[in-house]
Amino acid sequence: MEEKTHKFGIRRIKMVLAYDGTNFLGWQYQPGVSTVQATLEGAIEAVVQHPLRVVAAGRTDAGVHALGQVVHFKTTSFHPLEVLKRAFNAHLPQSIRIRKIEEVPRSFHARYSAFSRFYRYFISPYPLPFLYRYTWVIERPLDKGLLEETLALFVGEHDFAAFGSPPKKGGSTVRKVFRAEVRTHRGITMISLEANAFLRKMVRNIVAAAVKVATGRAPLEEVRRALDYPQGFRYPVAPAPPQGLFLWRVGFRKPWP
Amino acid sequence: MEEKTHKFGIRRIKMVLAYDGTNFLGWQYQPGVSTVQATLEGAIEAVVQHPLRVVAAGRTDAGVHALGQVVHFKTTSFHPLEVLKRAFNAHLPQSIRIRKIEEVPRSFHARYSAFSRFYRYFISPYPLPFLYRYTWVIERPLDKGLLEETLALFVGEHDFAAFGSPPKKGGSTVRKVFRAEVRTHRGITMISLEANAFLRKMVRNIVAAAVKVATGRAPLEEVRRALDYPQGFRYPVAPAPPQGLFLWRVGFRKPWP
Repeated sequence: MEEKTHKFGIRRIKMVLAYDGTNFLGWQYQPGVSTVQATLEGAIEAVVQHPLRVVAAGRTDAGVHALGQVVHFKTTSFHPLEVLKRAFNAHLPQSIRIRKIEEVPRSFHARYSAFSRFYRYFISPYPLPFLYRYTWVIERPLDKGLLEETLALFVGEHDFAAFGSPPKKGGSTVRKVFRAEVRTHRGITMISLEANAFLRKMVRNIVAAAVKVATGRAPLEEVRRALDYPQGFRYPVAPAPPQGLFLWRVGFRKPWP
Repeated sequence: MEEKTHKFGIRRIKMVLAYDGTNFLGWQYQPGVSTVQATLEGAIEAVVQHPLRVVAAGRTDAGVHALGQVVHFKTTSFHPLEVLKRAFNAHLPQSIRIRKIEEVPRSFHARYSAFSRFYRYFISPYPLPFLYRYTWVIERPLDKGLLEETLALFVGEHDFAAFGSPPKKGGSTVRKVFRAEVRTHRGITMISLEANAFLRKMVRNIVAAAVKVATGRAPLEEVRRALDYPQGFRYPVAPAPPQGLFLWRVGFRKPWP
C-alpha cells in the first residue's frame, strides 16, 4: 500500500499538467503578478484547505507553454485522486489543465528525480491568427539542412556557458543533450530538444542560433566555436521568442529512485 | 487590363482573410462593440484614406472563426496590391490576417457570386489549454457511425426551417447541402459541411443534432422527421458552441460571372 510510505497521513501527489503560457509571467511565483505556480497553488489550496508549495520539473519563462509539465506537492487531503483532479480543474482557469494525477512515494521529487526534459519549438512561415500565440513567425526561408547541421552540434555533453546561465550563480554550465532534431509538416518547422537539464534561456538560444545559421546570417563555424570555447563568451543572438516553446515531456525512471 | 472595367479609377478588391473570432462579437458591424467588419474597415480606411464598406461572403456569429472568409470593397487607392496587403496587415490586430488579395471586375460580389460556403467544426475529447478556444469539448464518447448516419440525412436540397432562420424574416428556408461528413484524427472529430448557403445557426444546429444522436440522446428518426416536416417546428437542441466553428472556404466560379 502506498499509504505506508508516508508518515502522519501525509500524501505526496504527482501531477502532469498542460498550460497556455500566453497570459502568465512564467512558472515561478512572484509577488503581485500572475504566474502558473501561484494560480495552481491557489486552486489546490482552495480544495485541500491547507497551504502548500508545488515543486515543478522545469521553471518555464514568461510566455512559454507546457504540454507535460510535472509537479509534486504534499497534502493531508484523503480524497480519491480522480475527485481531486476534477476539483482542481474546476478551480483552475481554462488555460491550465491537469492531465494526470497519481500518488508517489516520499522519495519522488519532481525536479531531482527527473532525468530528462524534452522541449519542442514551433516556427511558422505565415502569421495565421490561430498560430501566432504558439509559433515564431519567420517569413524568410529556412535552410532545413543547415538547421539540422547546427542542431547536431549541440548533441552530447558540452559546456553550454555561451548559450545560457546556470540557475544559481557560479553553478555548473555543463549539460548533456540527448536529442536535437528538426521536422517539418505543412510548412511548420518543429525543433525537438531533449537534455538531462537546460540552462536558463538555453533552448531558446539554441533555436535562435540554428535559425541564424539557417537564414544565412552566420556560418556554422561560429556556433561550433561557441561550444568549443564557451567561457567568458556569449553567443551573439537574441533568444527565440517564448511563444514558440513548449515543455513537452519530463522523463522519470520507474520505479521511483 | 482589369482597370478598363472600372469607371473613374475605382478599383474593386477581393481579399481572403483568416480570423480568430474569440474576442469579436461576430462579423457584422454593431455600434459600440468590437466586430471583425468594423476592425477590418478601420484598418483599410486608415490606409486608403477614404470611408468604405466591406461585403463578406458569410456573416459569422460571435466567437466563430474563419480560415477563408472572402470579402470585397471598392477603393480609389492606386497602390500595388502587395503594398496594400502589407499595410492592411500592419494596421490589423494579430487576430485578423489578410491571406490573399486580388483585383476583380465590377461583376464580382463576395456574397452574390459565391456558390458555396464550406464550414468545419471541431470536437475534442479533452480540455487542453490550446484547444478550448477552437473546439467543443465533449468528454463522453461519440458514436462515429451514428454521427455519419445523421450527417448523411442533411445532404441534398431540403427545407431546413427546423434547423435555422433565414437572414430576412419570411425568406426561403430551402438550402442545398453538397457535403456533410466526419473525420477523426488523434481523438479530434472534424465535421465538414458545405452548402450553397446556410440559414442562421444552421451549421451549429446540424452539429448539435448529430452529437445528440451520436451520444444516444435521440433516435436518428427524430432528425429525419424534422427534415421531412420542417414547418412550424424547431428541432429540440441547443446550437453547438461557436468556438468549434470555422468558415473554411468560400467557392466561386472563375471567371467571375
